[in-house]
Amino acid sequence: VTTIGSETEFINTLIGRFEPSPRRRNAPHEADAELIELFGGGLTGNTHLLAVTTDTISEEIETGLYRDPYQIGWMAVTASLSDLAAVGAAPLGLLISETLPEGYGSEAIEQLQEGISDGCRSARTHVLGGDTNTGQLLSITGTAIGLVYHRHRLTRRGCAPGDILYASGRLGRGNGFALAVFGNGRSGHFPGGYLPRARVREGLLLPGAATSCMDSSDGLFSTLAQLAALNRVGFRIAEAWEDALDRTSLEIVRSAGLPAWLLLAGCHGEFEQIFTVGESRRDSFTEKAGSIGWNPVEIGTVTEGPGVLLPVCGGTRNIDVAYLRNLSFRRSGGIGKYLDAILQYEHEMAKGE
Amino acid sequence: VTTIGSETEFINTLIGRFEPSPRRRNAPHEADAELIELFGGGLTGNTHLLAVTTDTISEEIETGLYRDPYQIGWMAVTASLSDLAAVGAAPLGLLISETLPEGYGSEAIEQLQEGISDGCRSARTHVLGGDTNTGQLLSITGTAIGLVYHRHRLTRRGCAPGDILYASGRLGRGNGFALAVFGNGRSGHFPGGYLPRARVREGLLLPGAATSCMDSSDGLFSTLAQLAALNRVGFRIAEAWEDALDRTSLEIVRSAGLPAWLLLAGCHGEFEQIFTVGESRRDSFTEKAGSIGWNPVEIGTVTEGPGVLLPVCGGTRNIDVAYLRNLSFRRSGGIGKYLDAILQYEHEMAKGE
Repeated sequence: VTTIGSETEFINTLIGRFEPSPRRRNAPHEADAELIELFGGGLTGNTHLLAVTTDTISEEIETGLYRDPYQIGWMAVTASLSDLAAVGAAPLGLLISETLPEGYGSEAIEQLQEGISDGCRSARTHVLGGDTNTGQLLSITGTAIGLVYHRHRLTRRGCAPGDILYASGRLGRGNGFALAVFGNGRSGHFPGGYLPRARVREGLLLPGAATSCMDSSDGLFSTLAQLAALNRVGFRIAEAWEDALDRTSLEIVRSAGLPAWLLLAGCHGEFEQIFTVGESRRDSFTEKAGSIGWNPVEIGTVTEGPGVLLPVCGGTRNIDVAYLRNLSFRRSGGIGKYLDAILQYEHEMAKGE
Repeated sequence: VTTIGSETEFINTLIGRFEPSPRRRNAPHEADAELIELFGGGLTGNTHLLAVTTDTISEEIETGLYRDPYQIGWMAVTASLSDLAAVGAAPLGLLISETLPEGYGSEAIEQLQEGISDGCRSARTHVLGGDTNTGQLLSITGTAIGLVYHRHRLTRRGCAPGDILYASGRLGRGNGFALAVFGNGRSGHFPGGYLPRARVREGLLLPGAATSCMDSSDGLFSTLAQLAALNRVGFRIAEAWEDALDRTSLEIVRSAGLPAWLLLAGCHGEFEQIFTVGESRRDSFTEKAGSIGWNPVEIGTVTEGPGVLLPVCGGTRNIDVAYLRNLSFRRSGGIGKYLDAILQYEHEMAKGE
């Protein structure tokens, strides 16, 4: 889970100065997981690349978004595995480093481990090892490790105008959950709970079929902004995009008088895979997906760009995804001001601006 | 860096209940890094195992032991790489997850990255990728990934009575540094600084030669206690053990009127490798080590046990390593009480108890 902002950009600049590994087969930020050459001497004799990714769950705990220990454990696993799924990797397993507050109750500790365990089980993988520390604040780092065939390397880069844009499932559940937790006077109750399943099984079908892929952990608009910049393309969202939204979350925004596209704009994503498939491969891909009982959702097409076009407010608007993804509860000075900014943006779109 | 105590034992119990991965080729706690089968179908066709390990630096920051951002970055790298070295792995690289406090200065952030970068360079390896978060407290998780030949699998288990006990270098620098930081009225100045180098290059010589290995990140006595329990052996420390101590640290304990063995008993180790070599391989091993300019220190022998025998106070004492390793600054109620307990133990040994 990556924060966006000037401080993070500064950190990324510094990290960009790290001497690059000669083993890494992807450019920085080009893939959700790093793709590493296992054995030296170029790719000859390397049938596989190692896929590795690390993710710390701390902000979501500090802000109060994740409170339930079981959910925290589950999310630590899911966030990392979702990054593996985005490169189509088969997991070898996870390392988990836990920092537990002194006096964190034994029941909470048990639930946390159960969430980790169940998160792994849902993706048919295992904890390989880890580290335990005590500290003032709860924090969990998951590191997922997997393998991909190097001939079918899948990254965020590779889509072209005309490709079809897919989501691995319905969108908006992450933002719906965040709204239930932080929203005006709400109880925090979110029907069905928020325990997204990492799309590992589905991800295995993507290499060779998809032209690019990225998970929606930071929300759809943020994901599209990054895919657009990396591929120098744009996106046209389909007319029927509201059909692709999670029903529970849609009800929450509607009953709060908020626009439905908030579910795509918010930065707490749903851990679906956002990927592109060439027109000519559509049928064979859909068939393959169907064979495992998976129905990916067509949400649009890749365009020459620039920009993300959304049919909304009676017209087609070029969404300022950079502006919207930089809005966040914290940076906006609280949920109230954030939602005011969203409503203001809706108002301007309605005026046709 | 693992805490020892009833809470951690409880957590370890829960973690022990995680469904074990069929790919893991070591028992829990049997090796400093987990040894993972890369390709399925047993070991046939698997020339290598993946070695993976994760380590969070947070306690040392919270207690004030590590304050310098450069040192924190360096240690995050070293702690993980040292675990790889203990299984004799060749590093593929590291993943680094950083949680930075909001408002952490840009100079501090730069120094932190420089420490990470230099730590990698000292072991001729690279950062492969990572994650950045903001939070209340600074915390860094390093995950190191490497390869070992599965035919020469090296773990903590395998030594036998008669084997020679080695340290990869002089001991006590970690505890000397901790004493300089926390000790009575000291300025925190530690001549030469505390930036231990992970023994990666030396570790590569161990598989095939050493019968067991574990890094001394928790101090020598703690390391020996674990090796003794796993292998059902004991250890006899050599008469001249004080010659194996770091000079700077020895001066610090002496000028504070503390016993020299405190440098072996404290739980802030020095990230040397503690390993055993069969008598018959001593000469060939020493020669091989010499060829890379390395002089491992003979610090004792493996015995039938039980116990760790230390020549001290005019006799040979069976050290209660379990008692001593459970002493810690925090659990003892501060450095003063910890040192009182150490002096009390010395007093009892001097009486021959």
